[in-house]
Amino acid sequence: MTTPAESTKSVEVTESGEAGHEAGHHGYMSDKDRYLARLKRIEGQVRGVHRMVDEEKYCIDILTQVSALTSALENVALSLLDDHLKHCVVNAARNGGAESDEKIAEASAAIARLVKS
Amino acid sequence: MTTPAESTKSVEVTESGEAGHEAGHHGYMSDKDRYLARLKRIEGQVRGVHRMVDEEKYCIDILTQVSALTSALENVALSLLDDHLKHCVVNAARNGGAESDEKIAEASAAIARLVKS
Amino acid sequence: MTTPAESTKSVEVTESGEAGHEAGHHGYMSDKDRYLARLKRIEGQVRGVHRMVDEEKYCIDILTQVSALTSALENVALSLLDDHLKHCVVNAARNGGAESDEKIAEASAAIARLVKS
Amino acid sequence: MTTPAESTKSVEVTESGEAGHEAGHHGYMSDKDRYLARLKRIEGQVRGVHRMVDEEKYCIDILTQVSALTSALENVALSLLDDHLKHCVVNAARNGGAESDEKIAEASAAIARLVKS
Repeated sequence: MTTPAESTKSVEVTESGEAGHEAGHHGYMSDKDRYLARLKRIEGQVRGVHRMVDEEKYCIDILTQVSALTSALENVALSLLDDHLKHCVVNAARNGGAESDEKIAEASAAIARLVKS
Repeated sequence: MTTPAESTKSVEVTESGEAGHEAGHHGYMSDKDRYLARLKRIEGQVRGVHRMVDEEKYCIDILTQVSALTSALENVALSLLDDHLKHCVVNAARNGGAESDEKIAEASAAIARLVKS
Repeated sequence: MTTPAESTKSVEVTESGEAGHEAGHHGYMSDKDRYLARLKRIEGQVRGVHRMVDEEKYCIDILTQVSALTSALENVALSLLDDHLKHCVVNAARNGGAESDEKIAEASAAIARLVKS
Repeated sequence: MTTPAESTKSVEVTESGEAGHEAGHHGYMSDKDRYLARLKRIEGQVRGVHRMVDEEKYCIDILTQVSALTSALENVALSLLDDHLKHCVVNAARNGGAESDEKIAEASAAIARLVKS
């Protein structure tokens, strides 16, 4: 799913000297292709729900698909969050000070949005 | 969004004598175009998240989008459920007996899946 | 858990001629003792979490208990909602008109609060 | 709410040389009284719901209280988690190695339980 052009770009970013920052921000990089594949599948599921409504399928069957979709999205969010804690938050904690506090506050706010959504 | 062929098909279904059943099953029909538009927008949002991962955007910003997406899907589900209660469940309750019990059990199970997803 | 005095009161209410209304409003009545027992257990669980904080137990262990508690409460809510649909909403649907619309709107709003809480 | 005996015990634990560990585990300590007060209020709310069922209040009103209760518990959980990240996870990240990985995995699992409960 990543074209050669894209991999080149991502190499360039690393070469630009922001390696530490990049590693922090892009903890999901190693799994990038897996995330992209999961999101493609979710996009297909949304299209499936669209088709079900268009073909006037039974409401409860549509709701079952929407619940599955919500769970799939939540799982993507939980994986992203785990990667973010593992990389970005751990790095910030090591650097300490305001950066550390800020990253934790930001992560807590994201967790609250997830729990409440 | 509905092609002439599709409207014909749905007329045929009604002509097949299942009118009562259809009315129950397809409570969302009057709003069908709005549901289809909402789902198109959600599909676009999923593609937006896919792009953000592909472009290696900041994790927390991606999580914000995923939370918005989950809320949008939940709102679609709540609308579908409301339409289902208004039409299908009300009709079944009027018919009474096993059909009524079955529709309520089915709706409760769908609600539980939504609450727990 | 129900004292004789309480059962007498509830008989009086029924005798006051509001039987239809009562049956609709109090669909959970048959299971009342089970609901009261579940809520007593939940109250005990909250006290357990209070004790864990007071004894400065490990944060993650407290969070595990809070998640279990949230699930237990959601299950009580889902049971109450199922009973409400089975009795109150079904009765209102049979009566039809504004009462039916109102009960459905009310149930949908309660479901939305549950899904979003 | 903490008896003299209890404070002594907690001092002893600190004296046993586990100070670093304790600081990590008990990030919520500074706010302990506030957590205890919030949990007391939640316990009172559960008792209120119990009373409502016992007095056979209207189902939808009980559901409203249960939703408020679930939100209050989620907020306690989110505060505990924030404190846990701020103290325990940050400390572990600084220590690095297996301890850091373990604490992150544990926090991610707790977040997943919260999101899915």
